[in-house]
Amino acid sequence: MKLPTDPARNLAALIRCPSVTPAEGGALQTLEDMLKPLGFSVERPVFSEDGTPDIENLYARRSGNGPHLMFAGHTDVVPVGDEAAWTHPPFSAEIANGEMYGRGAVDMKGGIACFIAAVARHVEKNGGPKGSVSLLITGDEEGPAINGTTKLLVWAAAKGEKWDASIVGEPTNPDAIGDMIKIGRRGSLSGSVIVNGRQGHAAYPQLADNPVRGLMSLVDALLHPVFDKGTKDFQPTNLEVTSIDVGNPATNVIPAKATATFNIRFNDTWDAETIQAEIHNRLDQAAGRKKYRPGKKTAVDYELVWRDRPSHVFLTRDEKLIDTMGGSVAAVVGKTPALSTSGGTSDARFIKDYCPVVEFGLVGKTMHMVDERVAVADLETLTRIYERFIEDWFGQGQT
Amino acid sequence: MKLPTDPARNLAALIRCPSVTPAEGGALQTLEDMLKPLGFSVERPVFSEDGTPDIENLYARRSGNGPHLMFAGHTDVVPVGDEAAWTHPPFSAEIANGEMYGRGAVDMKGGIACFIAAVARHVEKNGGPKGSVSLLITGDEEGPAINGTTKLLVWAAAKGEKWDASIVGEPTNPDAIGDMIKIGRRGSLSGSVIVNGRQGHAAYPQLADNPVRGLMSLVDALLHPVFDKGTKDFQPTNLEVTSIDVGNPATNVIPAKATATFNIRFNDTWDAETIQAEIHNRLDQAAGRKKYRPGKKTAVDYELVWRDRPSHVFLTRDEKLIDTMGGSVAAVVGKTPALSTSGGTSDARFIKDYCPVVEFGLVGKTMHMVDERVAVADLETLTRIYERFIEDWFGQGQT
Ligand SMILES: [Zn+2]
Ligand SMILES: [Zn+2]
Repeated sequence: MKLPTDPARNLAALIRCPSVTPAEGGALQTLEDMLKPLGFSVERPVFSEDGTPDIENLYARRSGNGPHLMFAGHTDVVPVGDEAAWTHPPFSAEIANGEMYGRGAVDMKGGIACFIAAVARHVEKNGGPKGSVSLLITGDEEGPAINGTTKLLVWAAAKGEKWDASIVGEPTNPDAIGDMIKIGRRGSLSGSVIVNGRQGHAAYPQLADNPVRGLMSLVDALLHPVFDKGTKDFQPTNLEVTSIDVGNPATNVIPAKATATFNIRFNDTWDAETIQAEIHNRLDQAAGRKKYRPGKKTAVDYELVWRDRPSHVFLTRDEKLIDTMGGSVAAVVGKTPALSTSGGTSDARFIKDYCPVVEFGLVGKTMHMVDERVAVADLETLTRIYERFIEDWFGQGQT
Repeated sequence: MKLPTDPARNLAALIRCPSVTPAEGGALQTLEDMLKPLGFSVERPVFSEDGTPDIENLYARRSGNGPHLMFAGHTDVVPVGDEAAWTHPPFSAEIANGEMYGRGAVDMKGGIACFIAAVARHVEKNGGPKGSVSLLITGDEEGPAINGTTKLLVWAAAKGEKWDASIVGEPTNPDAIGDMIKIGRRGSLSGSVIVNGRQGHAAYPQLADNPVRGLMSLVDALLHPVFDKGTKDFQPTNLEVTSIDVGNPATNVIPAKATATFNIRFNDTWDAETIQAEIHNRLDQAAGRKKYRPGKKTAVDYELVWRDRPSHVFLTRDEKLIDTMGGSVAAVVGKTPALSTSGGTSDARFIKDYCPVVEFGLVGKTMHMVDERVAVADLETLTRIYERFIEDWFGQGQT
């Protein structure tokens, strides 16, 4: 029987499963069929919660004497967008000019396909890694992410699973394989500032209180001054005002209420609590200063509402994990990858509570776009990097 | 036959016509029935335009040898709002504690009721005013105002009608009859500023261009510095930002576009053209200054769209008209009214192109509110003021 040592073949099988969140689409079954011949025991827990679709997930473990490495990822993909705009159909895995097309090619069926190929090569060559390897794969990363990685971690830990290190196979490289390993992520927090004024006629502003003026001063306080200049490991903290909404259709009416919504990406200068306190403090000061309402004695009447749960900032400090990944990349592609904490959040933020985690995968350029695709050569390169990582992290030898 | 000399009786008949724009509701017919016995010829032109409801209007003239006074007003009323919240039904004209309740009581069936009573008393006493009196009454003042006063003026002028002066019977008094005559109005102009940015992920602001930052700087330029400090006859020019709208529901996405809408009330320092040029200039300067985007080299990419047609600023300089109205008020209530240009626009802005115009009517406090009402004593006072005005403006004597 042929083991899944060819990453392109593995990926083609996965792309042909239309697993747009929340559909399993056959992707997890395909994984199970690849993993069982490699000696993995496979479980397929389904998680559900009121108001969200049931989600299938997969946890596979190949046990051995030695440390435990977990590879984490997702088989669900974002919608294809304008299907007619694709050069090759999004679920056909066609190869043209050395590139395989398909939704999920890089984000991140490709990473999973390579990791499985790497394990399969070890099994074929030397009987498998010298320790335990598990795959923690969710079908709910691109969606609400409620019935995915967080619950899978709780579920596995409750069964007694313990991991020594984790690789998340998201596409971390901006341009070419080997550019970048992610060793942490900024935190993320969103909130809305609602300013309450008093409605009135635009011709009688003295009888009304235009909340837009107050909101201007609060938004100004959110944007200035900068929160920090960045740290050794992180970019500067950054706040974006993602929406301002008044929704007043009548140009002769002063509105009663104005809302600004913002998102802040914060580094390790802060934690969720201290950055929230800073925001509160800035708003309180600005509301008292009433910069935009000269002559008015009353402060701006505002509420601050935090949205969703915060994503906490984290930085992985496990030298063995980081050095082994960096060394594997350097050995295969001949260049030293940047160790970065840039970009958005990922499921690594949940995994870091269980074990040290790094992220390394394919080139992200085409992710979430029409014509998402991966160079077939990149699949081979990433497989070799994962292969080398397994070799070096477990240490060579038989299980 | 009893002439309509009792303003409360006239008003009750009008309130009982449910003439919420665009419905005629019997109100113009009621007027016609009152005016004919006084010697008025009555016409009821209907105006229509694609996309707007047909509107009934009324033009009544009582001819005489002498100058021509036009009384202008509207019988349409705004909706009743929460009908259950009214102390007395909004179309019943019930009197309680000396006040008559009803939608339109002060805005402005009351003013019309008093003017007709004043004319009726002159007819009864001395055969009528020594000149021509006309009533130019629209059913489309509270609505889109497309098939109302403007068209009625064009229609009447085309028939050869010429007026020497006009009274608009809107409620001009803030607290008590006699407080305030309006002798002009500020201009009004509305526009939207649309800033175009580049959409992107909130974690990668360097790949996006958040239009909110640009809009902040443009809105700041609209609000500061003040446009002027007011003039002898007018309040300072004032700009209100009536809405800001982005409409981005995703807190992890930087939006592509942000819009601010504003309304400016400008005095006779400006005309519609010069204030538009000032706004353009402020925005251009701010867009180049890019105050809120330190380090960015590109200017803010914005569009300015003017909304509706501007209302032009005007000031009535007819001394006979202003002095006669002021004198009539003083003679009846014993105090000198303020000559004001404050407040919003009114149909006077259209009439001023045909003849000098002043505005004087009831107390506006309850207009457009639940429990709109008028003191019955105020109706008698206003009727006497109009009576006195007719006497003094035409000069005493028979027609
Ligand atoms: Zn992904
Ligand atoms: Zn009115």
